[in-house]
Amino acid sequence: MKFITYKYNDKESVGLLTIQGIIPLTQFNSMFDLIENFSMDAVNEAPTHYIPLKEVKLLAPIPHPRRNILCLGKNYEDHAKELGATKISDKFVPEDPIYFTKSADAVIAHGDDIKFYSVVTKQVDYEVELAIVIGKEGINIKPEEAEDYIFGYTIINDVSARDLQVRHKQWFKAKSLDTFCPMGPCLVHKSHLPLPVRLDIKSFVNGELRQNSNTNKLIFDIPYIISDLSQGFTLKPGDVISTGTPSGVGFGFNPPKLLSDGDVIECYVEKIGSLVNKVKAI
Amino acid sequence: MKFITYKYNDKESVGLLTIQGIIPLTQFNSMFDLIENFSMDAVNEAPTHYIPLKEVKLLAPIPHPRRNILCLGKNYEDHAKELGATKISDKFVPEDPIYFTKSADAVIAHGDDIKFYSVVTKQVDYEVELAIVIGKEGINIKPEEAEDYIFGYTIINDVSARDLQVRHKQWFKAKSLDTFCPMGPCLVHKSHLPLPVRLDIKSFVNGELRQNSNTNKLIFDIPYIISDLSQGFTLKPGDVISTGTPSGVGFGFNPPKLLSDGDVIECYVEKIGSLVNKVKAI
Repeated sequence: MKFITYKYNDKESVGLLTIQGIIPLTQFNSMFDLIENFSMDAVNEAPTHYIPLKEVKLLAPIPHPRRNILCLGKNYEDHAKELGATKISDKFVPEDPIYFTKSADAVIAHGDDIKFYSVVTKQVDYEVELAIVIGKEGINIKPEEAEDYIFGYTIINDVSARDLQVRHKQWFKAKSLDTFCPMGPCLVHKSHLPLPVRLDIKSFVNGELRQNSNTNKLIFDIPYIISDLSQGFTLKPGDVISTGTPSGVGFGFNPPKLLSDGDVIECYVEKIGSLVNKVKAI
Repeated sequence: MKFITYKYNDKESVGLLTIQGIIPLTQFNSMFDLIENFSMDAVNEAPTHYIPLKEVKLLAPIPHPRRNILCLGKNYEDHAKELGATKISDKFVPEDPIYFTKSADAVIAHGDDIKFYSVVTKQVDYEVELAIVIGKEGINIKPEEAEDYIFGYTIINDVSARDLQVRHKQWFKAKSLDTFCPMGPCLVHKSHLPLPVRLDIKSFVNGELRQNSNTNKLIFDIPYIISDLSQGFTLKPGDVISTGTPSGVGFGFNPPKLLSDGDVIECYVEKIGSLVNKVKAI
């Protein structure tokens, strides 16, 4: 059950992505509406009228998040270690989650360009991540109840300006330049991805495999993240939590393999799909 | 010209705070509306009907920010040095601004309680800050044009869980527990506070002076912040940028003077007023 947000005849709509095409879910006026009022019946009873995928403009599943994207840093051991050789981070694997945010306004869709602001940064990098979409409000959630609060999963490319990350110490701006948050292509309902999620996760730059891991290697797993993050902090429906990236980012290579104008990045997560974006220098 | 948001007869409204009372500005339906459609004439022509201040519930000037509060860390030299003695930070004064965010949903008003989540944190601290409110959209703003993008100023208490700040490395969650962003009491139009702003800034805990400085001591001044932050990152009307805190925070004392249940914190900035909140352990 893959949900998408798309533009068709100048109207933003939500639908179900199938092999035959898009089934419009006209009973929901946005992905927030779908998340908050979801039922299997409502979706299954949608009339099977198909719109060909090529006729729509795909948007991010949540094109206008109400809140910043909640992110974890250094949540795969191999990535924590590869950053140990750089100026971004201390050289150890974290004992506690590292939380930061990406601006909600940086979100772009599959197929949109990532803008490379060459006056602002010289070092733009990619990070494929599995992202959780929260389905209902909660605070002080127990790990064993975490799955109840999940709506589904999508993919985020946590695009990062490495030079700004080093200079600013705190990562917010380096991760929040306009267009630095590709999200998509779809939002998969949790019923298809029961916990613990064991999904291959990969990224490719111009077809070259760069990252290659599995989400079962998260240091802090999904129930832990939802429980820990929600202590004293209310999670809301539509919140997006990006769970961190495995090793193989450009900054981890020696010499670094950072992004350039025209590069095409594919972020792949098994059972969700591929999120593809091109870099455009401006 | 002090603007406030308040609740009166169960309705959220904006108004002008005067010595005689509140003048309702009924032509605006929210502070966003006022910011985006402000004119001196519109405000001056409001009928001088007064509501006594004690009859309303004061809300934060921007009670529901559309985006996270944009914050600077270590932007007064004396504070950067006092943190040098703690585990939060490297021991130097920053060469570049340190940007992080506080959750928009953590905002509370003058008079509201700061919740002390004693299971989540043992070390809650205060930080008085001058906050800029952005008046119009812009990207790549030049320092000499920064004032055009300002609507006005308010006060923020950048409440911080020091133990989480140390543990998480990135500061977002330690600064974003529910209720950790008192804002107010009012929003002063920039016409009353021309750049460079030279305002006394102080905090008191239970009447004891803790912080005592002047906003002319900012390491990165307001035009620099607006210009630098907006490089590759679009600022929007209603954005709030909190400019950092001077020395005298509880964590800077030896031994630390952290907050406890029942403590009353007053955050004062000259020409804006006092933002007062009480700590409530839960």
